Amino acid sequence: MLTLGCPDTTGIVAKISTFLADEGGWIVEAAYHSDADTGWFFTRQAVRADSIAVSLDELRARFAARVASELGPATEWQLSSSDQPKDIVVLVSREGHCLHDLVGRIRTGELNARIAAVIGNHTDLEDFATRLDIPFQHVPFPAAGTDPDGAGRAAAFARVAELTDVHSPAAVVLARFMQVLPPGLCTAWAGRAINIHHSFLPSFVGARPYHQAFARGVKLIGATCHYVTADLDAGPIIEQDVIRVDHSDAIADMVRQGRDIEKLVLARGLRWHLEDRVLVHGRKTVVFS
Amino acid sequence: MLTLGCPDTTGIVAKISTFLADEGGWIVEAAYHSDADTGWFFTRQAVRADSIAVSLDELRARFAARVASELGPATEWQLSSSDQPKDIVVLVSREGHCLHDLVGRIRTGELNARIAAVIGNHTDLEDFATRLDIPFQHVPFPAAGTDPDGAGRAAAFARVAELTDVHSPAAVVLARFMQVLPPGLCTAWAGRAINIHHSFLPSFVGARPYHQAFARGVKLIGATCHYVTADLDAGPIIEQDVIRVDHSDAIADMVRQGRDIEKLVLARGLRWHLEDRVLVHGRKTVVFS
Amino acid sequence: MLTLGCPDTTGIVAKISTFLADEGGWIVEAAYHSDADTGWFFTRQAVRADSIAVSLDELRARFAARVASELGPATEWQLSSSDQPKDIVVLVSREGHCLHDLVGRIRTGELNARIAAVIGNHTDLEDFATRLDIPFQHVPFPAAGTDPDGAGRAAAFARVAELTDVHSPAAVVLARFMQVLPPGLCTAWAGRAINIHHSFLPSFVGARPYHQAFARGVKLIGATCHYVTADLDAGPIIEQDVIRVDHSDAIADMVRQGRDIEKLVLARGLRWHLEDRVLVHGRKTVVFS
Amino acid sequence: MLTLGCPDTTGIVAKISTFLADEGGWIVEAAYHSDADTGWFFTRQAVRADSIAVSLDELRARFAARVASELGPATEWQLSSSDQPKDIVVLVSREGHCLHDLVGRIRTGELNARIAAVIGNHTDLEDFATRLDIPFQHVPFPAAGTDPDGAGRAAAFARVAELTDVHSPAAVVLARFMQVLPPGLCTAWAGRAINIHHSFLPSFVGARPYHQAFARGVKLIGATCHYVTADLDAGPIIEQDVIRVDHSDAIADMVRQGRDIEKLVLARGLRWHLEDRVLVHGRKTVVFS
Repeated sequence: MLTLGCPDTTGIVAKISTFLADEGGWIVEAAYHSDADTGWFFTRQAVRADSIAVSLDELRARFAARVASELGPATEWQLSSSDQPKDIVVLVSREGHCLHDLVGRIRTGELNARIAAVIGNHTDLEDFATRLDIPFQHVPFPAAGTDPDGAGRAAAFARVAELTDVHSPAAVVLARFMQVLPPGLCTAWAGRAINIHHSFLPSFVGARPYHQAFARGVKLIGATCHYVTADLDAGPIIEQDVIRVDHSDAIADMVRQGRDIEKLVLARGLRWHLEDRVLVHGRKTVVFS
Repeated sequence: MLTLGCPDTTGIVAKISTFLADEGGWIVEAAYHSDADTGWFFTRQAVRADSIAVSLDELRARFAARVASELGPATEWQLSSSDQPKDIVVLVSREGHCLHDLVGRIRTGELNARIAAVIGNHTDLEDFATRLDIPFQHVPFPAAGTDPDGAGRAAAFARVAELTDVHSPAAVVLARFMQVLPPGLCTAWAGRAINIHHSFLPSFVGARPYHQAFARGVKLIGATCHYVTADLDAGPIIEQDVIRVDHSDAIADMVRQGRDIEKLVLARGLRWHLEDRVLVHGRKTVVFS
Repeated sequence: MLTLGCPDTTGIVAKISTFLADEGGWIVEAAYHSDADTGWFFTRQAVRADSIAVSLDELRARFAARVASELGPATEWQLSSSDQPKDIVVLVSREGHCLHDLVGRIRTGELNARIAAVIGNHTDLEDFATRLDIPFQHVPFPAAGTDPDGAGRAAAFARVAELTDVHSPAAVVLARFMQVLPPGLCTAWAGRAINIHHSFLPSFVGARPYHQAFARGVKLIGATCHYVTADLDAGPIIEQDVIRVDHSDAIADMVRQGRDIEKLVLARGLRWHLEDRVLVHGRKTVVFS
Repeated sequence: MLTLGCPDTTGIVAKISTFLADEGGWIVEAAYHSDADTGWFFTRQAVRADSIAVSLDELRARFAARVASELGPATEWQLSSSDQPKDIVVLVSREGHCLHDLVGRIRTGELNARIAAVIGNHTDLEDFATRLDIPFQHVPFPAAGTDPDGAGRAAAFARVAELTDVHSPAAVVLARFMQVLPPGLCTAWAGRAINIHHSFLPSFVGARPYHQAFARGVKLIGATCHYVTADLDAGPIIEQDVIRVDHSDAIADMVRQGRDIEKLVLARGLRWHLEDRVLVHGRKTVVFS
């Protein structure tokens, strides 16, 4: 799997495709994007492993020497193998629908991933996880008003980080975790921490978005899967979707219908991330779905 | 056509349906909504005119005496006939897609309306309107920076109001008019001025929403049809819809795809308004579509 | 919860609503439908249990005497209480996504149901079910070509019926069961057996619908939740939905994306069924969602 | 604009992109598809005209010599310029919504086309067309039962063909034309005759699809834009979409809502066709939208 982003110019596709052809690479799937706004070029190429004679390390060395060196120092690229399931860590609170959904998708083989740990600030989902042999860790967070200087919360997050980082996960999934990551973790997990926000961002940033949506009287509600950054709910968006509501839907109805969208949007975003289909550039993403 | 809103209590449906049954009314379509949040009850009932023996005025008098008087002074109701096309006035600027669409829907009979006038602050759409025998009025607005005290703009709006009010229109449609109505006209046309905003509100209020959407990297763009109030783009929402975009869509692509949503959303909202399907309560609408 | 269907005439709503008002019933949710095509009237009314003074049996007797008797002998009605979770039986084969999804929805409380048994013609889903304390029964079916007179298949279905009927379930859910119910069971479970078919019916009836869809080159794939009748895939439709595909989607991609639609459509259809929101009339359904 | 389809092998992209790079071509938009099912490769590349020094004819000659000759005799390719509006002919009957919509899109510049003629078997749309300076031709067809040997119908189609072919149109659009093209015209206009069918094919082939949909009780209705072939409603599908309906929608409601989908689907399909975004292979299309 090759992903690459670099300043756009003529001949990039020719260079890459000639290199892959010379190595005997059978391209199974190829996608390209030239962004006129930023003058940047992006590509993702899936090549059959058995069509390449050399090792992955050797291929990387050759690509660096023959292609990347000619595309300039700003070029970002990655060559990886997709045969092994990737480890992920899932952060949860009390609501289980996103966790249930991810577990189901892993059991059916749709997501090529392994849940190394579920970390919850409540124990509501411990029973579900442990029955299915998924390690569950409880890290309590201070209740509102009991942690004036934030030391308790900082300690809890330090414990979450410790329990997470031991797995070097390919993704840290905030599956309705309901706690705002501190800036340090946003940096440490940049490009790997994935949140599902229960509104169609940028509408209804922050707490209780379904209540905000109900009060405003919108006719569609949505969910947004995005990378976590230090700006609350403002990280690069990976995927969004919506569902229709009307005046007869109370907040509880919105919550119920919204859960279906949250599950779908998170599952799509996470799969694309794990399959190297998401390239981040600035505040935006290129998604080769 | 009967529409009614009043404080909720037991027996309202019984009162109304008994009244209509006593008058011989054949109910073709009936919709009810009890809003738990506000404690308000809403209904819309379409009755076949030929099943009622008395005149519309007599029916109103009987309904006032026998039903409305028992439901309390806060009750709002309306009994009307839907056989005549209703007059509307359409305010436009340079972009024609919404006007083209409304004209087509009127020609096919989908919208039971007559365009009494098109008023434009530019003349781009004059040719289209006049070829189809729709009166077009040009009311120029001062260019940016040329009207420091707003007198020119106020005069232009006075002229728009004059040209509009002579028709006592059932709806004043801002079909991509691009000018913010002054508070006085928001009040004068309350519940009748209908705007199409080219974003999924409350995201991207104000100018150039597609540019805002592009910069934020959203994965869906939308449009919102709403009643105009003095708060910019914050009036009661009648209808919204969205369409999927991705990283390959430049702003021009968003604009093109967004136009399809704008047309659909405006057409639905306007039809529901003209057929007395929209009941406004506070900042929100009940839409019996 | 009152549901009723009867030949349409004037005054039905007045009769029902007057009856409920006289009993003190606080109507939380009411829906009506007059079908012009068949001349039939349908209603569903949700009444707060604590607003009614008499017992459910007494209420039924009063409704029969005062209302139903006046609406004619063709009238079908039902008065029930919705406080207890309903028992369901789920028939499965090897694919788990629908079962996973239903289990998740029951755990979150979205579906007010209890899975009395999962019956599988394979054992693939036994581990998942038993870990979560859901009784799993394995009923093997004869392999293709090994049961020329159908006796093995008949015996297997007899066993399925025995294991199912002991629970008197409110719904028998064919969650990608992949076996065609014999006519006897279609009759025995009429109005209770719910199937999810992995196409947008009536397109692609029968086996391997995603393969059929791929061969035809459709641009959307779908799923259909319907009551099972003796006509294959032709029973009354409860719910359908679709998702967009394009030329880049291989059959495996369609299968993966289709699963999301199957889960959603089955979950919606089953919830509406369990909440008495679905009224069947002939080949069609009225769904008061 | 380069479009190409050929048997898949390694190195195709390298050949094409090297050729374009050597000619100085600035690729604005590029799309590729390898079809695993048929072993065929497809691409579309949009190149800025001002980045190429040689004439279009010279570029074609060079491409034929240097690229196409190496890709084998089955290769189909096309190099064209997209600067001129393309001529289209629109066949209509009595319903105007598709014609209204296309005219609006051409007036706003969304469709880079010119309507060379509208041909109607009724005169309902003559007024609209002629007011907007679009040539309208009336070709009456024999009424049902008055043309037992089909001679009248054959003569009418001969006249339609004559009035159409004089323009050598890039597309012949059957905009709710309601007459089945004879096999001879299907062949003569292969790959250029575009129909809008008012159902989600393959459901509800043939006449009165909304009536069929109503009778079956489907929960979504749709429309399909496809190339016309001698098999009724079975040609390669370009685009489809659907809209939700429910039990409260009578046939007239389905017709009204369906029109919105017909307009959208036809407009998308026609635009893609005119922009060389549709490559036909067998019964299916590759659409580089």
